[in-house]
Amino acid sequence: MQRPSLDLSLDAAALTAQLVDIPSVSGSEEPLADAVEEALRGLGHLRVDRWGNNVVARTALGRAERVVLAGHLDTVPIADNVPSRLDEDGVLWGCGTSDMKSGVAVQLRIAATVPEPNRDLTFVFYDNEEVEADRNGLGRLAATHPDWLTGDFAVVLEPSGGEVEGGCQGTLRVVLRTEGVRAHSARSWMGANALHAAAPLLARLAAYEPRRPVIDGLEYHEGLNAVRISGGVAGNVIPDVCEIAVNYRYAPDRDEAAALAHVREVFADCGVASLTVEDHSPGALPGLSHPAAQAFMAAVGGEARPKFGWTDVARFSSLGVPAVNYGPGEPSLAHKRDERVETARIHHCEERLRAWLTGA
Amino acid sequence: MQRPSLDLSLDAAALTAQLVDIPSVSGSEEPLADAVEEALRGLGHLRVDRWGNNVVARTALGRAERVVLAGHLDTVPIADNVPSRLDEDGVLWGCGTSDMKSGVAVQLRIAATVPEPNRDLTFVFYDNEEVEADRNGLGRLAATHPDWLTGDFAVVLEPSGGEVEGGCQGTLRVVLRTEGVRAHSARSWMGANALHAAAPLLARLAAYEPRRPVIDGLEYHEGLNAVRISGGVAGNVIPDVCEIAVNYRYAPDRDEAAALAHVREVFADCGVASLTVEDHSPGALPGLSHPAAQAFMAAVGGEARPKFGWTDVARFSSLGVPAVNYGPGEPSLAHKRDERVETARIHHCEERLRAWLTGA
Repeated sequence: MQRPSLDLSLDAAALTAQLVDIPSVSGSEEPLADAVEEALRGLGHLRVDRWGNNVVARTALGRAERVVLAGHLDTVPIADNVPSRLDEDGVLWGCGTSDMKSGVAVQLRIAATVPEPNRDLTFVFYDNEEVEADRNGLGRLAATHPDWLTGDFAVVLEPSGGEVEGGCQGTLRVVLRTEGVRAHSARSWMGANALHAAAPLLARLAAYEPRRPVIDGLEYHEGLNAVRISGGVAGNVIPDVCEIAVNYRYAPDRDEAAALAHVREVFADCGVASLTVEDHSPGALPGLSHPAAQAFMAAVGGEARPKFGWTDVARFSSLGVPAVNYGPGEPSLAHKRDERVETARIHHCEERLRAWLTGA
Repeated sequence: MQRPSLDLSLDAAALTAQLVDIPSVSGSEEPLADAVEEALRGLGHLRVDRWGNNVVARTALGRAERVVLAGHLDTVPIADNVPSRLDEDGVLWGCGTSDMKSGVAVQLRIAATVPEPNRDLTFVFYDNEEVEADRNGLGRLAATHPDWLTGDFAVVLEPSGGEVEGGCQGTLRVVLRTEGVRAHSARSWMGANALHAAAPLLARLAAYEPRRPVIDGLEYHEGLNAVRISGGVAGNVIPDVCEIAVNYRYAPDRDEAAALAHVREVFADCGVASLTVEDHSPGALPGLSHPAAQAFMAAVGGEARPKFGWTDVARFSSLGVPAVNYGPGEPSLAHKRDERVETARIHHCEERLRAWLTGA
């Protein structure tokens, strides 16, 4: 089999097709990482580093600012949608077209065509974004080679419909437990029902009014929700335990400690026997007040909107690098059998980034 | 191996030991049923019928009333407690001593020693009482040979600590369902949380005041309890369904329709999307006003007390035969490794029944 390669002289849409045609389902990114590394090494003006199937390429021009452009190489499993297909309307179909090989194509085109950017650039291509968090290449690079990821501002080229998504909300999941005393249900007065004890807690959730704070001009929208409930021993036994998993999605003006304190306070008088943290990822401030970010917004235009879900933008934020999502893909098409991208959007995204990185 | 046999000339305690020493865990009652059938056929004054491992023996003296004495032959699994052992305090130890081979011994002793009772007698020995209801020998006899079970009053010799337990409460289990709309928990306002919708339902249960009606002089005690709750799709999804199983234990002045109507009424305004009956067994009136029952109470003495749990007494009741539990075993020792029975209690129970069935 011929070793696949990439031609960075192609336009970004054609390059996207090349990328899609090198399958890279999470865990099998090596051929694509090889092709990306080889293409970048051919450019000359970049220092290229590789760790596993993660490739990082950097300029070293001594600019006042450094910007990171990041994208993952992997896709969800192929669903009979590779190789790619370009239709007569200029729409490119195939696995990863939206999420996010069109974004990777833009990264590679900027790398190839902007040898002297106005800000130093770091291009990060990483693996295993679509699977468990502990396999995520960006997270593993942050742990093993944090110096490869330093910068003043980062753009993650995840599908965002060509709009800028700033920051992201944090997510905390706790398990609240109510307790009672087991008894035969024929003599229920001998026991105490832990499920009934959950009533005030669920009532509190039902009545909860989430905050909608405005941060850096973006309006966030919090949420506090039971996402799982379980309890019960047998059909004739008064249950002694009820467990309720509650997910708090919180705006990035709250840090982890404040988020947890808030949840504790909400349920302070609801008869909760214990509260255990099951999962916690802090949010990320949009960082749009940074000069690099403001120049970026001016170049790409439009209004930034907040990101409600947790993304790798927050991983950059935790490294001290304000970050946004901005990519040509369409988020609602990600992971779908009929995944596709408008090639005009890819070109537009490339042009906007080039304008930002070459302007005065 | 020698075929086991029973000696009905032994006193009831020694006969209990013989019964215990013929293992009869549910599903393996055949050797014991054989021995019981053989012993009864040897008596001459009884008509003996057998179906499967169920044995029924009857007098046909043309008395004005017919009384049924019933007991199950099976035990829970043996727990290193067979053969039986009689200690120096007159306590007999072993699997089934309390539940309910001491009761079966009393049945057999009455069968052997009261050839001309003042009421016609029907002795029922049945299998599979300790397992799923659809295997229960009494229930299967009721379906296949209802004429074998007719009578004016029945005594089930289940362990009752030598006291009379009258009637029993019914038990209804329904599944209440609340519904919502799924959404990603990062955008919870796009959905509707089915777990939060369960709050008013659980609050209604927590505030519920159960009835304690007095029937035939016995005070019952109802209960309405959630016994199981479940809901949840994933840690980041607003759940669209919550299911709560609720068990209503109700006094026997309510029939099945009234019990179900009550439960529907309790939750009428709680936002329940559906209510499904999962299990329903009606209660049984104590029937203590029947002349045979009053004579029985006079003979055995003491105060009757209500039975909260569901027992085969209710099965007789559904056949139109008022029934009580009255047996020498101790209910709190049933199903235990250290199961035992006081032999004095066995003799007392036998004497009381004989007095009732031979008195004027």
